Amino acid sequence: MSSSIERAEGLGGRLKAPKAESYRRALSTIEARATPHVARLMLASDLAYVMSAAEIGLTPPKEARALIGCLVELLTDADHFLGRPSSVDVVIQREAWVAERVGDEAAAWLHLGRNRGESIRGYLPRMFFRATLFQARGALLELVGALSDRAADTLDAPAPVYHHLQHAGVTTLGEWLLSYAANLLPHIERLKQAADRLDIAPPLMNGRPEWIDLADRVRRRLGFSRIARLRQQIHVTEDHFAEPLFALVLLNVAEARLAEDLRLYSTSEFAFFEVADAHASGSSLLPHKKNPFGLQAVIGGAAMGVGRLAGQLAANVSLSEELDAVFHAGSAYEYATDVVAWSHFMAEVIKHGRFDLEELRRKAAAPYACSSEALDILVVEAGMPFRKAHHMLGAAVRAHIDGAKDDPMAELRKAAPSVDFERVQRVLDGKEFPDICLNVPASSAALQEIRSAVDEERRSTPDANPVEATISALCLEAQAWKH
Amino acid sequence: MSSSIERAEGLGGRLKAPKAESYRRALSTIEARATPHVARLMLASDLAYVMSAAEIGLTPPKEARALIGCLVELLTDADHFLGRPSSVDVVIQREAWVAERVGDEAAAWLHLGRNRGESIRGYLPRMFFRATLFQARGALLELVGALSDRAADTLDAPAPVYHHLQHAGVTTLGEWLLSYAANLLPHIERLKQAADRLDIAPPLMNGRPEWIDLADRVRRRLGFSRIARLRQQIHVTEDHFAEPLFALVLLNVAEARLAEDLRLYSTSEFAFFEVADAHASGSSLLPHKKNPFGLQAVIGGAAMGVGRLAGQLAANVSLSEELDAVFHAGSAYEYATDVVAWSHFMAEVIKHGRFDLEELRRKAAAPYACSSEALDILVVEAGMPFRKAHHMLGAAVRAHIDGAKDDPMAELRKAAPSVDFERVQRVLDGKEFPDICLNVPASSAALQEIRSAVDEERRSTPDANPVEATISALCLEAQAWKH
Amino acid sequence: MSSSIERAEGLGGRLKAPKAESYRRALSTIEARATPHVARLMLASDLAYVMSAAEIGLTPPKEARALIGCLVELLTDADHFLGRPSSVDVVIQREAWVAERVGDEAAAWLHLGRNRGESIRGYLPRMFFRATLFQARGALLELVGALSDRAADTLDAPAPVYHHLQHAGVTTLGEWLLSYAANLLPHIERLKQAADRLDIAPPLMNGRPEWIDLADRVRRRLGFSRIARLRQQIHVTEDHFAEPLFALVLLNVAEARLAEDLRLYSTSEFAFFEVADAHASGSSLLPHKKNPFGLQAVIGGAAMGVGRLAGQLAANVSLSEELDAVFHAGSAYEYATDVVAWSHFMAEVIKHGRFDLEELRRKAAAPYACSSEALDILVVEAGMPFRKAHHMLGAAVRAHIDGAKDDPMAELRKAAPSVDFERVQRVLDGKEFPDICLNVPASSAALQEIRSAVDEERRSTPDANPVEATISALCLEAQAWKH
Amino acid sequence: MSSSIERAEGLGGRLKAPKAESYRRALSTIEARATPHVARLMLASDLAYVMSAAEIGLTPPKEARALIGCLVELLTDADHFLGRPSSVDVVIQREAWVAERVGDEAAAWLHLGRNRGESIRGYLPRMFFRATLFQARGALLELVGALSDRAADTLDAPAPVYHHLQHAGVTTLGEWLLSYAANLLPHIERLKQAADRLDIAPPLMNGRPEWIDLADRVRRRLGFSRIARLRQQIHVTEDHFAEPLFALVLLNVAEARLAEDLRLYSTSEFAFFEVADAHASGSSLLPHKKNPFGLQAVIGGAAMGVGRLAGQLAANVSLSEELDAVFHAGSAYEYATDVVAWSHFMAEVIKHGRFDLEELRRKAAAPYACSSEALDILVVEAGMPFRKAHHMLGAAVRAHIDGAKDDPMAELRKAAPSVDFERVQRVLDGKEFPDICLNVPASSAALQEIRSAVDEERRSTPDANPVEATISALCLEAQAWKH
Repeated sequence: MSSSIERAEGLGGRLKAPKAESYRRALSTIEARATPHVARLMLASDLAYVMSAAEIGLTPPKEARALIGCLVELLTDADHFLGRPSSVDVVIQREAWVAERVGDEAAAWLHLGRNRGESIRGYLPRMFFRATLFQARGALLELVGALSDRAADTLDAPAPVYHHLQHAGVTTLGEWLLSYAANLLPHIERLKQAADRLDIAPPLMNGRPEWIDLADRVRRRLGFSRIARLRQQIHVTEDHFAEPLFALVLLNVAEARLAEDLRLYSTSEFAFFEVADAHASGSSLLPHKKNPFGLQAVIGGAAMGVGRLAGQLAANVSLSEELDAVFHAGSAYEYATDVVAWSHFMAEVIKHGRFDLEELRRKAAAPYACSSEALDILVVEAGMPFRKAHHMLGAAVRAHIDGAKDDPMAELRKAAPSVDFERVQRVLDGKEFPDICLNVPASSAALQEIRSAVDEERRSTPDANPVEATISALCLEAQAWKH
Repeated sequence: MSSSIERAEGLGGRLKAPKAESYRRALSTIEARATPHVARLMLASDLAYVMSAAEIGLTPPKEARALIGCLVELLTDADHFLGRPSSVDVVIQREAWVAERVGDEAAAWLHLGRNRGESIRGYLPRMFFRATLFQARGALLELVGALSDRAADTLDAPAPVYHHLQHAGVTTLGEWLLSYAANLLPHIERLKQAADRLDIAPPLMNGRPEWIDLADRVRRRLGFSRIARLRQQIHVTEDHFAEPLFALVLLNVAEARLAEDLRLYSTSEFAFFEVADAHASGSSLLPHKKNPFGLQAVIGGAAMGVGRLAGQLAANVSLSEELDAVFHAGSAYEYATDVVAWSHFMAEVIKHGRFDLEELRRKAAAPYACSSEALDILVVEAGMPFRKAHHMLGAAVRAHIDGAKDDPMAELRKAAPSVDFERVQRVLDGKEFPDICLNVPASSAALQEIRSAVDEERRSTPDANPVEATISALCLEAQAWKH
Repeated sequence: MSSSIERAEGLGGRLKAPKAESYRRALSTIEARATPHVARLMLASDLAYVMSAAEIGLTPPKEARALIGCLVELLTDADHFLGRPSSVDVVIQREAWVAERVGDEAAAWLHLGRNRGESIRGYLPRMFFRATLFQARGALLELVGALSDRAADTLDAPAPVYHHLQHAGVTTLGEWLLSYAANLLPHIERLKQAADRLDIAPPLMNGRPEWIDLADRVRRRLGFSRIARLRQQIHVTEDHFAEPLFALVLLNVAEARLAEDLRLYSTSEFAFFEVADAHASGSSLLPHKKNPFGLQAVIGGAAMGVGRLAGQLAANVSLSEELDAVFHAGSAYEYATDVVAWSHFMAEVIKHGRFDLEELRRKAAAPYACSSEALDILVVEAGMPFRKAHHMLGAAVRAHIDGAKDDPMAELRKAAPSVDFERVQRVLDGKEFPDICLNVPASSAALQEIRSAVDEERRSTPDANPVEATISALCLEAQAWKH
Repeated sequence: MSSSIERAEGLGGRLKAPKAESYRRALSTIEARATPHVARLMLASDLAYVMSAAEIGLTPPKEARALIGCLVELLTDADHFLGRPSSVDVVIQREAWVAERVGDEAAAWLHLGRNRGESIRGYLPRMFFRATLFQARGALLELVGALSDRAADTLDAPAPVYHHLQHAGVTTLGEWLLSYAANLLPHIERLKQAADRLDIAPPLMNGRPEWIDLADRVRRRLGFSRIARLRQQIHVTEDHFAEPLFALVLLNVAEARLAEDLRLYSTSEFAFFEVADAHASGSSLLPHKKNPFGLQAVIGGAAMGVGRLAGQLAANVSLSEELDAVFHAGSAYEYATDVVAWSHFMAEVIKHGRFDLEELRRKAAAPYACSSEALDILVVEAGMPFRKAHHMLGAAVRAHIDGAKDDPMAELRKAAPSVDFERVQRVLDGKEFPDICLNVPASSAALQEIRSAVDEERRSTPDANPVEATISALCLEAQAWKH
């Protein structure tokens, strides 16, 4: 351990003994897993603090300049810290990085005016999730766009509907794709609302006017429009971890359902879909096979997300001032970035995969596929009581399956003499798809709505990730301090 | 089994054999657990359907009148169905209830134009959660109000701050209570947003103009402002279960943290709080004991909620058209009502419990409690570098604890000759609480803000639960049909 | 509330106020959910206590006799307590039941020498899970037996193998069924080991010789071979909830995988399996449909179990002397009985469902299904390096799929001139299933082993549930006390 | 990407396009997280395969020798692969490592006779968990040993008992420590049983006699006493992930409860315990503070483990032949090694922490602490009915707390004239601890039993990790092949 780390850890101050090896392994190894995800955010918040503190006159100008220069260097040299393994938390670690470059004296001014919790529990997760929720929205828009684009060409391509995996009518491939697009759309709003609730800077623990001034400058520099003023607000809940995580898990679950469907449709039994070669793996044993591992990673990932969220919430059922989950934030951050990657991947799968319209049409024409339409004829056109018509039609189907010798429809004919039973039979046989079943006008209307929503969303969203924009602005501002 | 149940289940129609006992136990027993929570909603949606279908002329007037009369009766006689155990799902069950009263012929018109999924997976959970999220908001407002009221009297009552359960400064009881209030407030917005996303009626599976007309009348009667038009929209996600559940779990977790704090404060070691006798249990073995079981039920409930949410999401990682979680919706509904009960209970606990201001003040005055203030003096007033001041102060504390014979502050005195060390010592000793530590002005401002928010919320919220209002309106409308 | 309930709850003793309505709803309603599952066990333990205490002379003979008589009555009249809704925990409740029958004076002797935790947290869950794990083993044996029986007739019936839902070779239906049987077998051992670890009676909190004597008599009467002597042993872990729950969840997950397979095989695309009519539901909308809801209840149930286990463990991450999960034990008990029901149901599904051997054979003969066998010919018989042969065969398949004009095997022929490529092609085409692929001898051997294991297990397992046997013995013993 | 990786991935064979960047990120990045945990196990299994295949004559001797030499080198040069980031799964990766060293021709023989699943889903997790469960048992024994050793010195040191965090009697520090030791002991058996169930080698997918021979030699070389013969056995459950994970989570939860207790006892309000400086952290803000972060990492870790287990089981509720969880095995392996680290850490905390016997004694002597003993006097010695005595004593305590002017015991004196109420009062006042409360003889007996169990366990456990022993033996055997 470097001496700057040990000093920052309190050795020789409050604590007499160096950390035990077992303590480093039990604690710091785990905390350090967050570092790749938040190191740049930590340095950015340092930059905001040092510039603000110098502005107010809390930090001597010379040391402030040294710190600012060093922080900009570190921020633009991410490989430096991401490449080297670390076994302390990012707060301690970045003090060591800085001390290594500017010496202990200047580094002693780095942490001025705040506590570790304010960073690890307050600013860093909020900044991380604001950035990641923004990325997730972008990837999700890409997926919704891809679904709409594929739907546009297949609005009238017949496809089977399944309920409980049994044939349950006829739809079009376009309607099916748009159903996903329509149900994914509200996720965009949810991701935004979750991000909005993150827009509150953590409170300072200290109440001096200088600190209040400092805190306000910092939160503005870091892009927060509000700041908490009650000091335990940082403690009494950890919703700023749980809610973004939930929004991402829910998105992942929705995408996993799409992946499950596509995996099923990729069987040679269903044979509706094939992922692109670039999105598949071979088999180590069977030379002929093409495996949809990517889809499976998304599905398994959703299960992992369910678990990670449960772990988060379980840890949060605790005394208010504890932060037991924060030590383990690394795996939450990692999962969040995975969801962005999976969203982008699913968009690509939809864009480049191959739907087999022939096979979809063939399977749509299954016997009885339009039995609800046949039922409607009996009920709406012939006025048969619903339950009676349903019952008699069911019995007719059963008789037919059982290979009845007599006409299975005989009783129905008697009960509803006005009905054109040849038409009922054609519908039941799946020989024709009544327009009513294909739902094309509704699908066309939905396509327009979804495309408008996507366009509107794209128009109103800035190109740059707001957190990255904040960091760029900080670095730019820092140039002025050099002189 | 009654014959109307068997007929509704398809016996003699598509299916030849009666249900096996093992099937009833494996499936229907579990589905029936939802019935107490959704039976009234099912009947209300029946009423909306029957009235709308009759209006359009789909149902014969006589049968429609009989059904309407029967449904209103059932709706106003909840004990009827809640008291009798059931072993079929609510859709089958209510057809049997109706058939029992109006005969098979009229009952045959009951289920016209929809499928089981539309109710069980679409309308019922959406109506249930809209009602329950509304109740949860009411109970939460009550809790936030209670916290604010108790805070108003204790804005300047000193209390210890803990981090990691170690003394970490001084606050006031008022600030602590308001921290909870402030962090609970955003839950109200989250509950509302979750409810808003439920405001979309499920799509019909059929596309005939008559059905489209029917569906639109029904969704208006049931209080929904939009309807899904793509038929698989009901299948591709189950966010309408998962999101309300999450919003309630998150609330429960926040309340569990308050309960954890209060439980700790109720120990004779902390001795800051005592629940009212009406909110406590005795001990079966120890005659002198008073146990905070209610707080524990809230805490354990949060853990159960975490699990139930995980179960929901785990079940949702599935093919899109499955509904594996829906069979088990009963336990989700039950949990949701528990959260409302716990929120109300926590409000009562805060209202009627006793805080011991004396003991809070005594414990706040712990040695070193204001060490961050002492550090601030050295850094802000004497210009010592932060890390150096922190380190030397830490070493001084350690020397003091270890019983050093020499003056533990000697080195610090040398390093910062301008500082008034008697003042530092008084602060360190916890002999005085600098005003800065009590944060009273910020707390007062926060109290006003929170009270305004609560008042505004109360003003803008209707008194009646919107789902109950819908049911009342339906019953009223039904009166006209009698004649 | 009855006065005996209020007295047992401490009203007028340590506590001045009656329970608030909000407290009953937040706490007792939830606790009372366990009562249907443990009321008989509570009464049985009461019987053991009263008889033992009377034996030692701690309870006056007359009151003891009255209590014993009343308890036997209650035990044989389960409807009494299971029918009436309760809003207190079972410990309080049964004291009220008893007081109602024998009067307050005799009832005052009921709870002698123990605390609520000893029952609710110690004896009741241990007795409940010993009984339920026994039932689960029985149902599981039935399922393994059913799988073996169906396998016996289909040991040479070809069936496709899937990996990642892609065709991956040929097996037999028998081998597939036996794979489930073989992997389910270790669950029997796990269930037993979990039950064995429950065989320790909870410690008494009191140390008097009379109590030690009493405790030992009670634990013997209740069928426990050991007793904990350290008094906090009941507190420091709650493994006796978590481990049985885990063993049941794991079983449920395994059965859910079987149910998932069968659901997939029930599609008209796969068409390998059909559940019996008695194990299926009709569709409310589509008269022709037959839905495998029972399989779905098992699948969804596994997800619920995963959540319930997570909730249990989450609640157990707590201070040692807390019991936050115990208040919510009702849902754990309910889930445990569900798993028994699902195990039994799955056995019935296997016994009575229909496998379509024709279709299995047809789908097994898919192109390339035996590509690993073709690869083996190249590697083992012709000595081609594994990776090279794999690569060239893969390229040949691809060329074939892409509709190459030239002979896709041309390069392979050159590389392995000694190989009989007509045979390779036949194998690749799925025109023949080499015996090697069907694995019949291994399957036959496995069938014998599994059947022996099942027989041995049946022989060594008592017919009667040990907990029920204990209760019967207690009731029998109680007869003697009447006189 | 290196060409050997692309070839192993099927490029130019079955697949035409190179992997998309989005596919690598969505899939391989995640799979590669397992590599640090299983790379050595993969290489060891390669060694077993290559030696066995060469023995039988399946691999040419020259290539076999080259492979064996290379594998031993890689196995002894772990830094090689652990240091370099990888973005493919370990099966592909190790083929690239090998090809890099021995050339493509020899490397082409590496993967002979098996599929990826057999390694990733079969051998690797089983070997990993056998090794890790062994380590966990060792660390757990260390912890049980430490608890017993600390208990040995404190068998008669009075300490308070808490139920629901309320004073509930008197124990000794020794009894409390031993309670943990006693309840941790069964975990050793559970860990062993879980490891025993892993002792079955995965089945080969191929049925040729050469492969059967090969598989048997390999499983012996890798230390497995049995092998599965039914080929889908590897698919139909994934208990070999779920059960070891559960056993570790349960251990972690038990240790977290100990950590929770110690954290509470480290407050200045309880003041019973202080972790060693080497096991604590300073505060970044408060120079005087010493934070028990390590304990918190264990507590939060348990919550994470609960989540990871839920994720595992959720992913396992799937079609039998899927392996959605396996892609994400890295985080399961990481968590498993964390549990070992936390177990070792907790042992160290117990060994080096400081218990304050003075404070424990002082707090044990709380008013009413022995109220159950007072109750026993009334019931056992004076024959008062239990409920009556309990009620009157409770009322007396209440009167006393309420500051009643009259003698709170007056009624009791009348009801039980034979009782020595001065003694009752002394007991109630906590002025004396009746021997009966301290439970010393039972604790002494338990100490002996636990120590015997630990000794016996140590005697019967080999020093070396069995998996490491297997690897050593393989390397040794490989020496012979060089020549």
